[in-house]
Amino acid sequence: MRTQVVIIGSGPSGLLLGQLLTDAGIDNIILERVTKDYVLGRVRAGVLEEGMVELLDRAGAGARMHAEGLPHDGISLAFDGQDHRIDLHALTGKRVMVYGQTEVTQDLMQKREASGAVSIYEAANVLPHAFDGEHPHVAYEKDGVTHRLDCDFIAGCDGFHGISRKSVPEAALRTFEKVYPFGWLGILADVPPVSHELIYANHPRGFALCSMRSPTRSRYYIQCSLDERPEDWSDERFFDELRARLPVRHAEAMITGPSFEKSIAPLRSFVAEPMRFGRLFLVGDAAHIVPPTGAKGLNLAASDVHYLFEGLREFYLDRSSSGVDAYSHRALKRVWKAERFSWSMTMMLHRFPGTGGFEQRVQEAELDYLVHSTAASTALAENYVGLPY
Amino acid sequence: MRTQVVIIGSGPSGLLLGQLLTDAGIDNIILERVTKDYVLGRVRAGVLEEGMVELLDRAGAGARMHAEGLPHDGISLAFDGQDHRIDLHALTGKRVMVYGQTEVTQDLMQKREASGAVSIYEAANVLPHAFDGEHPHVAYEKDGVTHRLDCDFIAGCDGFHGISRKSVPEAALRTFEKVYPFGWLGILADVPPVSHELIYANHPRGFALCSMRSPTRSRYYIQCSLDERPEDWSDERFFDELRARLPVRHAEAMITGPSFEKSIAPLRSFVAEPMRFGRLFLVGDAAHIVPPTGAKGLNLAASDVHYLFEGLREFYLDRSSSGVDAYSHRALKRVWKAERFSWSMTMMLHRFPGTGGFEQRVQEAELDYLVHSTAASTALAENYVGLPY
Repeated sequence: MRTQVVIIGSGPSGLLLGQLLTDAGIDNIILERVTKDYVLGRVRAGVLEEGMVELLDRAGAGARMHAEGLPHDGISLAFDGQDHRIDLHALTGKRVMVYGQTEVTQDLMQKREASGAVSIYEAANVLPHAFDGEHPHVAYEKDGVTHRLDCDFIAGCDGFHGISRKSVPEAALRTFEKVYPFGWLGILADVPPVSHELIYANHPRGFALCSMRSPTRSRYYIQCSLDERPEDWSDERFFDELRARLPVRHAEAMITGPSFEKSIAPLRSFVAEPMRFGRLFLVGDAAHIVPPTGAKGLNLAASDVHYLFEGLREFYLDRSSSGVDAYSHRALKRVWKAERFSWSMTMMLHRFPGTGGFEQRVQEAELDYLVHSTAASTALAENYVGLPY
Repeated sequence: MRTQVVIIGSGPSGLLLGQLLTDAGIDNIILERVTKDYVLGRVRAGVLEEGMVELLDRAGAGARMHAEGLPHDGISLAFDGQDHRIDLHALTGKRVMVYGQTEVTQDLMQKREASGAVSIYEAANVLPHAFDGEHPHVAYEKDGVTHRLDCDFIAGCDGFHGISRKSVPEAALRTFEKVYPFGWLGILADVPPVSHELIYANHPRGFALCSMRSPTRSRYYIQCSLDERPEDWSDERFFDELRARLPVRHAEAMITGPSFEKSIAPLRSFVAEPMRFGRLFLVGDAAHIVPPTGAKGLNLAASDVHYLFEGLREFYLDRSSSGVDAYSHRALKRVWKAERFSWSMTMMLHRFPGTGGFEQRVQEAELDYLVHSTAASTALAENYVGLPY
């Protein structure tokens, strides 16, 4: 079989790239290791930058998002018993959209089905081949039979643990990593969010985040030690700890209820350079991970898709390879700014075990400065809503 | 002997406080351990915030500064072979004044002599006493004779190594410290500065700073390892290394010449809390040290003087102790913001031995973001010119 672009991975970045390509008349096939339902069962991010909203609109997959998503004009930074609103819209003219990654994925899957483009689920042992030449191909097994897909390009949208980055010779990759000495214990619960906007709290007991998926579904997180286990945290214990880290008015207003998801995620910063190897491109988590503070992961995958789609469009429609050649450089420039922002938000909002008093006071001074300086608030806001592509 | 305020230390903060008090009719005596010439021989900072310029004007000691000082509207950040100007004045409406600390000290000494206020130089074994009660006094020896100065208040303006902080019981102090793993090798030379504004350079070989004291006197620094010795650095070697760290156009334009001062200074962040113990106040370096990146040390001493002077003025003229009581809180709020800024400038501009590649890339992304974002440039600029008192 032959196609123009093989996309490995049917998460939001693979689906979004596929839809943009299909709409531009560029033939593509998506290979996905697991089932559709498994993909849709993943609980992930839920704050979309305007750039990603525009890409979803451009892909014709934005209707439900606009109907059901929650546009947010601000966030709160809570510390020292008070919360301080950062008015994202007043400071930048932009807003963010709260809409779960699962919903984005579902909308894009429906759109893809309607378009007739091919997705192959439960494709086992996917392996990119010969991407250092002009005729790459991808092998996979389906129902015990080995297949070969010839193509012009391979887009690795298969996440941090996927085969795409792993298929690159180690010597060709340079990786950068920072592991943080804590995790996030998160729950989903069908209770109304404590506030209509997100609250990022820095408290002596640790960081907390009050987020949401909808007006009736809350997503709450607390910083925890990496040796904690979700099963040791009853809902009651979780909510007690969460409330202890919030300003009193939020703690008192919080509605609690049974959680239906509870898990601990480690926090990590990771970048692999470059993001292009001949005719193989790494996209999103396949190339980089950010800690979730600041909600940049999914948005960064979207900006990678933007740069890669523009490059491929130019290649096929304008017969120029300059966009494809520039992909890694362009994407990484924005990746590192988002890595910097996610790292700085993480450093500013969490408690670091073993850190001396000096760093703690600097953190307090930073928060105090930030919420009282229009320039510093604007710098935070422009990163939060997303730097321009 | 009796006075209202004993000031320990005849550096710029002690002299400035003394002058403001004298002008307000508040009697004060300055005790200084060394000679006047020794004080004037110290080579120190040279970039004054507008707040400090205004205080010097208010003290009637600003005439020569306005005549000979160099008002600067911007600074350059040099990295990746380019320099990027931060237009301080366009971003904040303020500028800084380049005028050596030695000159400030000299102007204030002349003013004090003219006013007839008493300074006692070569006062040995100065020791503050009974400052936890209402009748403090200070002991000192002069020409072998022990003296006692009774007073209402004691201002400790005697620097990091002075007796003021050391005379506070250890249990009453909380200290915060960060030591950086490098120093600054600095020279003074009577050559025209390579640029009419300061250049802060981040280079793979290490940080460099091109500063000045006048249109004919340059002050240059390079980051160095703490085990370097000034005597191992000939002027030629120093200038070669400095040029290697600057963008080519500056390296080519640099005029070199014999240095007449060469020394290595370690970089340290330090804060002692609180800054008031009964009737003893710590001012400037006696309470806090910043690394020189960002030129905040002298300016922070000036803002301490401002808060303390206002407190003492209220005490004597308005018969209210509220300003004196609030001194430590007010001063520390600004101190920690300047500590944060000096720390962040230090972290952003130096090379850190042993730091992983991730931190290095984050530093590069931060510089790139900073010079291309008006909000981030403004945040840097408003700190550099000085946050409001």
